[in-house]
Amino acid sequence: MEQTQDKTTMVVFSGDLDKAIASFIIATGAAAMGKQVTMFFTFWGLNVLRRDEYVNVEKSFLDKMFGKMLPRGPEKLGISNMNYGGLGAKMMKYTMKKKNIASLKELIEVAQDLDVKMVACTMSMDVLGITKEELIDGLDYAGVASYLADADESKINLFI
Amino acid sequence: MEQTQDKTTMVVFSGDLDKAIASFIIATGAAAMGKQVTMFFTFWGLNVLRRDEYVNVEKSFLDKMFGKMLPRGPEKLGISNMNYGGLGAKMMKYTMKKKNIASLKELIEVAQDLDVKMVACTMSMDVLGITKEELIDGLDYAGVASYLADADESKINLFI
Amino acid sequence: MEQTQDKTTMVVFSGDLDKAIASFIIATGAAAMGKQVTMFFTFWGLNVLRRDEYVNVEKSFLDKMFGKMLPRGPEKLGISNMNYGGLGAKMMKYTMKKKNIASLKELIEVAQDLDVKMVACTMSMDVLGITKEELIDGLDYAGVASYLADADESKINLFI
Repeated sequence: MEQTQDKTTMVVFSGDLDKAIASFIIATGAAAMGKQVTMFFTFWGLNVLRRDEYVNVEKSFLDKMFGKMLPRGPEKLGISNMNYGGLGAKMMKYTMKKKNIASLKELIEVAQDLDVKMVACTMSMDVLGITKEELIDGLDYAGVASYLADADESKINLFI
Repeated sequence: MEQTQDKTTMVVFSGDLDKAIASFIIATGAAAMGKQVTMFFTFWGLNVLRRDEYVNVEKSFLDKMFGKMLPRGPEKLGISNMNYGGLGAKMMKYTMKKKNIASLKELIEVAQDLDVKMVACTMSMDVLGITKEELIDGLDYAGVASYLADADESKINLFI
Repeated sequence: MEQTQDKTTMVVFSGDLDKAIASFIIATGAAAMGKQVTMFFTFWGLNVLRRDEYVNVEKSFLDKMFGKMLPRGPEKLGISNMNYGGLGAKMMKYTMKKKNIASLKELIEVAQDLDVKMVACTMSMDVLGITKEELIDGLDYAGVASYLADADESKINLFI
């Protein structure tokens, strides 16, 4: 009973590289400490979960446009501050690599190894016209009620 | 006693359309599940609560300038990402309508029907020179001590 | 035992003046109500803690570049919205002063007087090449495990 109150749950709303890195460092840290962790990816956060290759899916014109404009996966994300058209993101990735800090892609793999529950928000997928085929494997698909159920059992709740 | 620990409380700091939508979807979802929900609107979050018509209030020059620059209500908000001078916000509203997802204006009405407590931060109103006359009906007015009292009784606390 | 569950913990990720002010108003408010408060400064949040004078430290070329681009302390921060190259931040500081609201610098001093625990994230310092010499006095230095330990004992957890 007590244990069910001890989860960690995050809404990952942002699609910024730096915020995504922060969310995965907290998530993998909490999971390593034995917590059940849920990450609920909504709106731009879905970009973090996109496959980096183009996936051919039939879509409406508007959904196609959104799909083209939205970055595809960890390698394409910008940073929330001083991005300078992607240069800032490149500098941050370069300096993290040089200092032996895990990349976002590696952090996502660690999270999956540690059984972090990664949920794609179905309503956001609908709004942005993103399909399951375009997202990485191993995800859950759910809406706000599922998020609230996890959040309700969590001591640590964050909106990122 | 237990029940008083079971509220949901959000600081809505952002005035971005997409973040406002996310906050109201969580708020109305939690309220529908029977939670007492408080939304504390501060800084740019106040823009979400502004009436869409011009309200004639006597103000200092600086307050007038702020008033002119800040968007008036849900229809005027931009999005946090890919806004392109308002085009992104228009696209998002258009696609949400087409897919039968409630607009921000409708979500606010649902929140009020579900007795979500919507509080305007009085210190932020003071900083931005926004008066009660310029905000929608049905709000509470309070400061950080009131927010902390609600947050302290909440299992889910978010800063959006 | 109960008391240890009653902390307030924030991740201050943002380096925006307005978000920093919001975080310190919540932190000092909670501390004034007798809570143990921890603020964990990560990524751009470190800018809030930088000394305003130039500190001569030996650095790699990239770290030097980051150091030059990142704002030095409360007086140099921009705001998250309508900053207009710093004009918005100036207007906000001017209007807050006129309305007798504490500045960020004053809020930081109040926080330190109230024993708010301010922690600089060592991994972020490493990524951005920021050294202890460049940050204000009275800080703790730690990583995500320390943050999670505090967060786990907190009723109010925020990511700002």
